[in-house]
Amino acid sequence: MSERDDSKGGSGPETGNKMWGGRFAEGPSAIMREINASIPFDKALWRQDIRASKTHVAMLAAQGIVTAADAAAIAGGLDTVAAEYETSGVPENWDLEDIHMTTESRLAELIGAAAGRLHTARSRNDQVATDFKLWVREACVAADAALGALQVALVTRAEEHAATIMPGFTHLQTAQPVTLGHHLMAYYEMLDRDRSRFVDAHRRASQCPLGSAALAGTGFPIDREATASALGFAMPTRNSLDAVSDRDFALDYLMAASQCALHLSRLAEELIIWASQPFGFVVLPDALSTGSSIMPQKKNPDAAELVRGHAGRIAGCLTSLMMTMKGLPLAYSKDMQDDKPPVFEAAGLLTLCLAAMTGMIDGAAFRTDRMRAAAELGFATATDLADWLVRQADIPFREAHHITGAAVKLAESRGLALDKVPLADLQAIDPRIDERVFAALSVDQSVASRASYGGTAPEQVRARVAEARRDLGLE
Amino acid sequence: MSERDDSKGGSGPETGNKMWGGRFAEGPSAIMREINASIPFDKALWRQDIRASKTHVAMLAAQGIVTAADAAAIAGGLDTVAAEYETSGVPENWDLEDIHMTTESRLAELIGAAAGRLHTARSRNDQVATDFKLWVREACVAADAALGALQVALVTRAEEHAATIMPGFTHLQTAQPVTLGHHLMAYYEMLDRDRSRFVDAHRRASQCPLGSAALAGTGFPIDREATASALGFAMPTRNSLDAVSDRDFALDYLMAASQCALHLSRLAEELIIWASQPFGFVVLPDALSTGSSIMPQKKNPDAAELVRGHAGRIAGCLTSLMMTMKGLPLAYSKDMQDDKPPVFEAAGLLTLCLAAMTGMIDGAAFRTDRMRAAAELGFATATDLADWLVRQADIPFREAHHITGAAVKLAESRGLALDKVPLADLQAIDPRIDERVFAALSVDQSVASRASYGGTAPEQVRARVAEARRDLGLE
Amino acid sequence: MSERDDSKGGSGPETGNKMWGGRFAEGPSAIMREINASIPFDKALWRQDIRASKTHVAMLAAQGIVTAADAAAIAGGLDTVAAEYETSGVPENWDLEDIHMTTESRLAELIGAAAGRLHTARSRNDQVATDFKLWVREACVAADAALGALQVALVTRAEEHAATIMPGFTHLQTAQPVTLGHHLMAYYEMLDRDRSRFVDAHRRASQCPLGSAALAGTGFPIDREATASALGFAMPTRNSLDAVSDRDFALDYLMAASQCALHLSRLAEELIIWASQPFGFVVLPDALSTGSSIMPQKKNPDAAELVRGHAGRIAGCLTSLMMTMKGLPLAYSKDMQDDKPPVFEAAGLLTLCLAAMTGMIDGAAFRTDRMRAAAELGFATATDLADWLVRQADIPFREAHHITGAAVKLAESRGLALDKVPLADLQAIDPRIDERVFAALSVDQSVASRASYGGTAPEQVRARVAEARRDLGLE
Amino acid sequence: MSERDDSKGGSGPETGNKMWGGRFAEGPSAIMREINASIPFDKALWRQDIRASKTHVAMLAAQGIVTAADAAAIAGGLDTVAAEYETSGVPENWDLEDIHMTTESRLAELIGAAAGRLHTARSRNDQVATDFKLWVREACVAADAALGALQVALVTRAEEHAATIMPGFTHLQTAQPVTLGHHLMAYYEMLDRDRSRFVDAHRRASQCPLGSAALAGTGFPIDREATASALGFAMPTRNSLDAVSDRDFALDYLMAASQCALHLSRLAEELIIWASQPFGFVVLPDALSTGSSIMPQKKNPDAAELVRGHAGRIAGCLTSLMMTMKGLPLAYSKDMQDDKPPVFEAAGLLTLCLAAMTGMIDGAAFRTDRMRAAAELGFATATDLADWLVRQADIPFREAHHITGAAVKLAESRGLALDKVPLADLQAIDPRIDERVFAALSVDQSVASRASYGGTAPEQVRARVAEARRDLGLE
Repeated sequence: MSERDDSKGGSGPETGNKMWGGRFAEGPSAIMREINASIPFDKALWRQDIRASKTHVAMLAAQGIVTAADAAAIAGGLDTVAAEYETSGVPENWDLEDIHMTTESRLAELIGAAAGRLHTARSRNDQVATDFKLWVREACVAADAALGALQVALVTRAEEHAATIMPGFTHLQTAQPVTLGHHLMAYYEMLDRDRSRFVDAHRRASQCPLGSAALAGTGFPIDREATASALGFAMPTRNSLDAVSDRDFALDYLMAASQCALHLSRLAEELIIWASQPFGFVVLPDALSTGSSIMPQKKNPDAAELVRGHAGRIAGCLTSLMMTMKGLPLAYSKDMQDDKPPVFEAAGLLTLCLAAMTGMIDGAAFRTDRMRAAAELGFATATDLADWLVRQADIPFREAHHITGAAVKLAESRGLALDKVPLADLQAIDPRIDERVFAALSVDQSVASRASYGGTAPEQVRARVAEARRDLGLE
Repeated sequence: MSERDDSKGGSGPETGNKMWGGRFAEGPSAIMREINASIPFDKALWRQDIRASKTHVAMLAAQGIVTAADAAAIAGGLDTVAAEYETSGVPENWDLEDIHMTTESRLAELIGAAAGRLHTARSRNDQVATDFKLWVREACVAADAALGALQVALVTRAEEHAATIMPGFTHLQTAQPVTLGHHLMAYYEMLDRDRSRFVDAHRRASQCPLGSAALAGTGFPIDREATASALGFAMPTRNSLDAVSDRDFALDYLMAASQCALHLSRLAEELIIWASQPFGFVVLPDALSTGSSIMPQKKNPDAAELVRGHAGRIAGCLTSLMMTMKGLPLAYSKDMQDDKPPVFEAAGLLTLCLAAMTGMIDGAAFRTDRMRAAAELGFATATDLADWLVRQADIPFREAHHITGAAVKLAESRGLALDKVPLADLQAIDPRIDERVFAALSVDQSVASRASYGGTAPEQVRARVAEARRDLGLE
Repeated sequence: MSERDDSKGGSGPETGNKMWGGRFAEGPSAIMREINASIPFDKALWRQDIRASKTHVAMLAAQGIVTAADAAAIAGGLDTVAAEYETSGVPENWDLEDIHMTTESRLAELIGAAAGRLHTARSRNDQVATDFKLWVREACVAADAALGALQVALVTRAEEHAATIMPGFTHLQTAQPVTLGHHLMAYYEMLDRDRSRFVDAHRRASQCPLGSAALAGTGFPIDREATASALGFAMPTRNSLDAVSDRDFALDYLMAASQCALHLSRLAEELIIWASQPFGFVVLPDALSTGSSIMPQKKNPDAAELVRGHAGRIAGCLTSLMMTMKGLPLAYSKDMQDDKPPVFEAAGLLTLCLAAMTGMIDGAAFRTDRMRAAAELGFATATDLADWLVRQADIPFREAHHITGAAVKLAESRGLALDKVPLADLQAIDPRIDERVFAALSVDQSVASRASYGGTAPEQVRARVAEARRDLGLE
Repeated sequence: MSERDDSKGGSGPETGNKMWGGRFAEGPSAIMREINASIPFDKALWRQDIRASKTHVAMLAAQGIVTAADAAAIAGGLDTVAAEYETSGVPENWDLEDIHMTTESRLAELIGAAAGRLHTARSRNDQVATDFKLWVREACVAADAALGALQVALVTRAEEHAATIMPGFTHLQTAQPVTLGHHLMAYYEMLDRDRSRFVDAHRRASQCPLGSAALAGTGFPIDREATASALGFAMPTRNSLDAVSDRDFALDYLMAASQCALHLSRLAEELIIWASQPFGFVVLPDALSTGSSIMPQKKNPDAAELVRGHAGRIAGCLTSLMMTMKGLPLAYSKDMQDDKPPVFEAAGLLTLCLAAMTGMIDGAAFRTDRMRAAAELGFATATDLADWLVRQADIPFREAHHITGAAVKLAESRGLALDKVPLADLQAIDPRIDERVFAALSVDQSVASRASYGGTAPEQVRARVAEARRDLGLE
């Protein structure tokens, strides 16, 4: 039943952990090897780990803490290890616990005793915090870029459909006509906020933990500014206890990812509903749909459903890490090893979701005829009637709303669209209505009239699209 | 950044999915292959899938829906596939999407066209529901057994320490003396409820979905009682729409697992605190501890911390699936493919946690001297003084509580234990106190006196242990 | 910004807490009074608190621990307090912290010193556990009853619509025709599992904590069997430490409530989609819809949306309590005071959701014409063609699936329903098709054919309805 | 069982909702009144609602959409309503649903028909989004200020204890000596990130929804820049559909609050452990502790426990809203009414937690003698021995670590502190050790030596404190 059944074995229980020293009378038991080993997932950090180690040893040499010769041997050895990982993958030997031990152990095989000098003035606690923070910072950059690509897709389709009429919904009830371009640009805005969240998360993760050692800092004359800068951080962390016990950066990432996934889940929900036969607003690309093993006619919006489903898992990853971190005393506790699986899972899922959604927006065939037809049903311009009464007849809005309600009731009982109700019948409801009202009741007029800033009028949509294209660097 | 980077490749994009038929103009894109493929995780269902398929085809033959010859060919082919999986693992070809397609595709290679008859009168929708339900039912049984093993460990240590004095805490403040056996038996009770939850989950999952087909049942004259019974279910599901859209059984499992993990997290928290130097109540087994890469003196309770941390992840898995299932219309939606990763993850973690905790309880060296010493500090018998006043002097409890408060304040200011305060001083607080009170103030007497049913008195602990041993079949 | 701003005040800081005795040099500060006071929410437990206190004192008298006269005075006083609460509500004096202190304090005002004898042989720790468990047990019973009422509504409408054709969806795509009755009965099944969860939760909460005292039991010769039985429990708890630190019963309730809410959210989602103009499958009752402040034509499915939204909050309540309980050492910790708000909130929301959904099912006007029309579109009987090929022409299912795919593609390109494609064209795809096929392609025939156990055929639906009516005691 | 039992009643079912107009044949049923009414909680928005309405009508007048006379009447009427609310609270009439209707209804009573002009060019959808966003922005400001106050408390105590020795823990095991000031400053850093999150949340919520109307904007010639600016926003929202369907700002608040609560929960956990008898590192202020109803000697860290418990509830609030928002189609859905209870609850709890924690840090009496004594046990300077070997004897760190492990084992077996092991015995382990080593093994020397940037050396702590005091404006 274990998630790791397949990778069991490899190294025997007799090998023990050579890094813990001579204090332990017996080696870790089989269960301990399994529950303790993080190598099955933290091997994803190998690039960050080697980069940070090279940076560390270069600083140690510059500060005279290790000799230039040892530093060169270590750096060369690390390059060799990296090349091996690149070619053959990272070996999973549970006795070596994690990527840090795995790499250092291989380094020792390659260069001998000098390898033992790499761990001077650092600890696994600051090492893992540094590696993981580097990884998360890269994930923020990647998410921002993928969001940008989806924004490009949205803007492109929005421009194309700046004047395409569709029903706007509230409560999934036809409310007022809007344009498809306006609808798509609503998601552009959400993604803009998502991008700002990843940017904030990246910025807030700009302090480098390296050199905080186990928890208290070190007595070696290290240069933390140098390593922070070389690794792309703005500065070193200011408190060593905080540095090794902090996982805010992982939570910041998960929070940004969760909100982004929620936005994507909303768009996915809409695509799924729009692709249903009764709506028929969209035909999703074949390349992102699937068929059925039993119903040959089916074309299922699987990609959209998976995007919607993944939102649950991504938010679950956030819950996991919040719950794991709650109530932990300082400094490092082993519970914190459970920080990486949720982040890696969420990042993998988010990457897929953003790519799939970009493909769906790019490839969606919008059935604009059906959208317009739906907008013309459902009395979508009733508000326009009320607004006309306010403007033309100076009736307070609340009263205009009541008059319109009566007109809708009449139209519904007759089975007529609102603009097909005879004038005389409308005037029977309120004599202040005159024939000019009909001009206000077409969906095109309705949409064109909503030209307030941020409104659905095509001119507004085009203005927003133009701004967005500039912001995206498209022109 | 993808979680699946390593396993990419295998089959080219040109292969397409042969199961969807001739309707699709182009094959699924690369992103679709990745987001859609569940084979990386649902291969864990291969034993259940083959078992259910063999049961299905045997029924089809018995009902005359397929010929005996075809059924034999299919059953034989499935045995071959199973043997291949057992030996070489399940291949991950993303174009074959899932374990069902993977197996059927291999079957077709092995036995030719007859393989196409296996999918008669079923769909992937009922197939995956059946496979997954079988898996979850087995996981319930496994969890129950693992809980039983941990209960045995607890009962064994509780019996040993039925009269070992330790401080009982509320608010992590010394409250009243208890026995270590009593404390351990508290966890026995929690686990008993956990076991009943897994039993309930198993029972509630006793209806077999197989034969519900895509969502509506089938027109073939199948015998659902037969397949249900052969697969160990009590009966077939009663509504085909529900059968394919239900994931309650997965949630039931996750809920039982979450509560169990919470219990283990509480015990883990205690072991971590007890193992700290200031408490020093326990030495955890070397085999379940680790050392430090930088601090040679450390012996860290990593296994306990991982148990505590895993509780967060397991509860996160529950959150994931609740969120994924929320608001899904009937019947099957692809979001439901996100049901398996959280369940597999939680089950793997729970298995590890239970095994690790069993090892810790088995191997814990309790430092009974330090426990007793701690119990004798902190005025743990103050309640005994109050109770004595009620019983011997017929003082209402609330008044007795006030008198005792004054006595504690005096003792604290003098730096004395409560039973070391001179009688005269106690009598100055309340003249109804006499020398008999001192007998009530020793920790042994205190513990022995709490002989109400379920209380901490050694006789009560031994009685509970005896019952538990009977329930566990230990005698 | 505080949630309690409105109820502040009442008692001055100088009053202090008379129950803690003489040990505290200064009274609790203003912030402590606010963060510590649970009376704003735990006053909901007053009936349980008084009932448990009366039971406790009756037992104390029966065991000779208090005199009959004192017991009578206490019981009478508690009756007076209850009458006051019933008439005027429970006063919120934060200095009295909680419902237990509030009641005992009032009792002391009413009957004097004898009130102080009520707290003999118990503690707030076992008292609150008992009160809350009683409350939760009642909530389980209430949920079960409300679920039964919703099941009656579903069964009644299902019987009415046992043969009403509608499209069955998977992936929200038209899949196969089903009956509305079958669809409604799917929810009957879900609710049946929900009821069994509340029954299990109730059963698992059948041990009475009263008499466990603070954590260790008591030295008074109490009769725990008597109090347990009088309060409707099956037996006393078996371990006093567990009894005061256990909140499994609250989690069991929240888990049952969460799954129930998820089921309701799915039905709500369907009603919302069905009520949209493009679907138009249902008109929800006016009494459970709302209008718009700006769009006079709107009739919004607010009740359904609130049911769907409340599912999020109920699951959030579960997350809250899981997170709060994680990692708490034994026995009682004050964190556990945060157990009640989520349970009370979830129970209130669930009660509303169940009542609202019952009203919606009762009052829904199903537009059966539109349902049938939708079922006849979308090639819903394609599977029937494939199945016909298997049965009539003995073609393996996978091949039949391909032939049908080609037929659907042809029909789609011609804009025809499947049963309107000329036979010659079908035979051009596969010559084994003959004119008998058309009989299989009507939605009525399709539905009638799916008569496997649990299938959508009207006869099956009626059989399930009949069973359900018996189980509900309707006949 | 309902959470609203107490406030039921007030207005009869016959009153109906006068705002929905003439379309509804029957009034909302009792259950609908209850599930639909948000006034019990959204009355908390009254100040924001009146402020936004006054801003809106002033703009309408400035744009000539309403007359100056009507605008004056409306503004005056709103002032009257505000004064009434201030004095008597907001009435809860469920038929008026929410704070918006409640206020407008009262306005109509006060000023007559002109009240009906207030709702021109807006809808409840943009109105509630604006009100709630204003509220959340204020909550961000309040949280930032409360965090600043706690930082002041931390910095003050840290300065006082910049050189106070305590054991630094990893895995709750004594690791290396640190200073209490350093430990407290770790929380300063966490809170600094929390503050930046609230600042970011505030900034990201700087677009004003008002004027987006129901979902599509409006045809009235409104000036959205004017209202945005008057309400303190940086600009209007750029897309009306997004404006009314966005609740990111609420999630941003909850995410910032959740991380903050997690930090507080960690500090609370430490205070609870430190206040336990075996640690005895701190005596918490009486004003934030409680006693026991049964154990007179108890002084319980209730405030700290409630802070820790509240973290669970705050994170649960976040889960609630994420789950509620998932998969909602645009634009407004009634599910979104469930946005406010979790935010109000979380904000109330966070406010209490921050205040309580500030009080605890201010008033904590640290028992520095016990801290130092604990630091001198547990071989906390073993790393110093290893580092000495590296520096003085040029031994690779890994080898030094092994030598130290042997020394610790020896010391432990002899029951000696590390600096009390005879030199000869140390030299038997490794002859390169000489008498200079003993200087490195005192806790004061150890702490002083860790003077790397961000390390625990008193000089480093004082430097950080000085920076923090400047950042806090304390000097």
